Amino acid sequence: MIESLQNLWQEVRDLTVGPPPRVDRLPSPPSPLQFLRHYVAPNKPCLISAAVPDWPALSLWPSPSYLRETLASTAVSLHLTPTGKADALAHIPRNSSPCFAAAHVEKLPFPEALDLVTASDLGETKRVAYLQQQNDCFRAEYGPLAADCEDHVPWASEALGCLPEAVNFWVGNRFSETSFHKDHYENLYVVISGEKRFLLLPPTDVHRMYVREYPAAQYIYHRLCDSGQSRGVLVHCYRVRTLELKTLLKVEIRKCNLLKDSEEFELELEDPVRKVPWCSVDPYPSPNDKPSAIEKFPLYFNGPKPYEVTVKAGEMLYLPSMWFHHVRQSPDDSTLTIAINYWYDMQFDTKYAYFNFLQSIPRSLFENREMCETASSSEKCLFDDED
Amino acid sequence: MIESLQNLWQEVRDLTVGPPPRVDRLPSPPSPLQFLRHYVAPNKPCLISAAVPDWPALSLWPSPSYLRETLASTAVSLHLTPTGKADALAHIPRNSSPCFAAAHVEKLPFPEALDLVTASDLGETKRVAYLQQQNDCFRAEYGPLAADCEDHVPWASEALGCLPEAVNFWVGNRFSETSFHKDHYENLYVVISGEKRFLLLPPTDVHRMYVREYPAAQYIYHRLCDSGQSRGVLVHCYRVRTLELKTLLKVEIRKCNLLKDSEEFELELEDPVRKVPWCSVDPYPSPNDKPSAIEKFPLYFNGPKPYEVTVKAGEMLYLPSMWFHHVRQSPDDSTLTIAINYWYDMQFDTKYAYFNFLQSIPRSLFENREMCETASSSEKCLFDDED
Repeated sequence: MIESLQNLWQEVRDLTVGPPPRVDRLPSPPSPLQFLRHYVAPNKPCLISAAVPDWPALSLWPSPSYLRETLASTAVSLHLTPTGKADALAHIPRNSSPCFAAAHVEKLPFPEALDLVTASDLGETKRVAYLQQQNDCFRAEYGPLAADCEDHVPWASEALGCLPEAVNFWVGNRFSETSFHKDHYENLYVVISGEKRFLLLPPTDVHRMYVREYPAAQYIYHRLCDSGQSRGVLVHCYRVRTLELKTLLKVEIRKCNLLKDSEEFELELEDPVRKVPWCSVDPYPSPNDKPSAIEKFPLYFNGPKPYEVTVKAGEMLYLPSMWFHHVRQSPDDSTLTIAINYWYDMQFDTKYAYFNFLQSIPRSLFENREMCETASSSEKCLFDDED
Repeated sequence: MIESLQNLWQEVRDLTVGPPPRVDRLPSPPSPLQFLRHYVAPNKPCLISAAVPDWPALSLWPSPSYLRETLASTAVSLHLTPTGKADALAHIPRNSSPCFAAAHVEKLPFPEALDLVTASDLGETKRVAYLQQQNDCFRAEYGPLAADCEDHVPWASEALGCLPEAVNFWVGNRFSETSFHKDHYENLYVVISGEKRFLLLPPTDVHRMYVREYPAAQYIYHRLCDSGQSRGVLVHCYRVRTLELKTLLKVEIRKCNLLKDSEEFELELEDPVRKVPWCSVDPYPSPNDKPSAIEKFPLYFNGPKPYEVTVKAGEMLYLPSMWFHHVRQSPDDSTLTIAINYWYDMQFDTKYAYFNFLQSIPRSLFENREMCETASSSEKCLFDDED
């Protein structure tokens, strides 16, 4: 069976996308028919160079003063974590098993939020702020910017026969990272400033992601008081990737003047426990962690390399539905990465049925001692570790 | 695993085609985008009612005298079999294993060929003639009819971004039947006179077809001499479903006046042996054969019913690439069924890779004693009988 699966991985690469690491690059947007025929139908990504040449956003948004002034009195959703990794696996202190950690989300005036993004740091403050919210936040929160870009992607809307289900806006820097996951949307991702670095894997590689169920947890951010006096902080807990506000918690912080910087965040398991299926693979383990990562996830680390796509200002990535993707931001400290993406409903069709079938095959059937052995010095075959 | 497979069968039905036995019916042709989005991309059949309202063929071809006059001096390919089943499994006398039998193909003046079609009979003559040839025969052999219809399907050509690879023409009656098979083409099938009755199964049902390798064989037709004198007969052996003429045999019949009607056909295995993978299931076994058919092919007979589509004069079936189909003709003796179909190149994409993966899974993994037991009174589980 492992040969069948490896053939599938290879055939999808040979037949549709072509050899890694690069994907198709188009000089300008395709026609609706070309887009549907060559990219959506075969579920194949592409990168479009001069994707939105007429958007005022291209010249306006890279200027922080323009955004500050235009959004001076606009409240926006800010995601806060101590690591820059939200919707990612994390460890609760004194708990050996990882959990699925969602960011702390606060609504703040845009200028204040942008200050926190700019001040993000993994060193001294251990606080990374990321302006994002995947519940259609561009249309819901960034109304004053609407005239700077289009409210949909006309050729994509014509191809797909619908308007976007959600339009999201992202302002972050190199400290923010999005872990491997997939979305049930056709995704058109436009970078306006800085760059986004994607790792992409086709849905047929699902077994290589070691999707497992993790208990959901939430970062709770205790904002330090300037005065050292206690005060109430409104903590918004969103269930990310759903469109609904889940709950509001009011947290009394009585001794905030005693809290150290590193203690600003707490990671709390949801009660009652809720399990979230999530990809286990971190594609960039530290040098120390790399051997154990290879041992734990041999199908990922010993299999074909992911596609690497860097999306620069003015470019648009078509990220097909169900593709696994991992995202990092501009490589230098000073550059903000600003992006907007359009989520269109996907068709739940034959490909989706095939995916569900593939995913339903237990990894034990793909057991291959040879692959394990090249991957691991341990005697235990890691394929025994089932989803 | 059998549950995973059954879920796949069901999900493809639920998500794309809808519940059997019917498929989508459109009152008129879709736009190129609609066709691509709703049918080609999800690999979903549809039936179009007023598909070719402007074609002169609709009024001209049903008249045998029009065809006889227009094609008076045109040589066309005629397929001859003793059973009406060509490209189907058959038994060579004194040989217990079935073979894959191709028709005897002769080139004859159209009026003479049409007489043989009309005189087809399973009783007295045991000779069924079918005007067909899947090597682009409409453009190659029926030039004088070209003005009566379109040389492609404009909205399909625009959707698919190409012109047809082959255009085929079919004149037959109720005695001709096409066994279950699939083609690597997007197929647009227009009936001009009479009707065609299709059974359709999605590619995901591949294990239900019990595809096995059979030795290729060829019907050789010895034409009886009017005079009782011996003469040479040119026998054309085509390798059907390829576009190339394979070989020409010259057969000397020395004592044709001694041959009985039933001895006109011989079925000869190819030498050297050539194996052809073919579907084993006959969906219409005789009442006597039905119990053993159910026993041999439980996944077919105990699984979901095929889609049944009757295509009438003026209607067009979109038969998606890789769908298994079985075809019968007009139900009454007198009616000729005349049809033309357009084969467009399919995209060998993710769906194709998934199909190959699915097909590579040995049926033994889907073994399910319960399904066998409901299907069979025998003690032997038929799933042991591998492709």
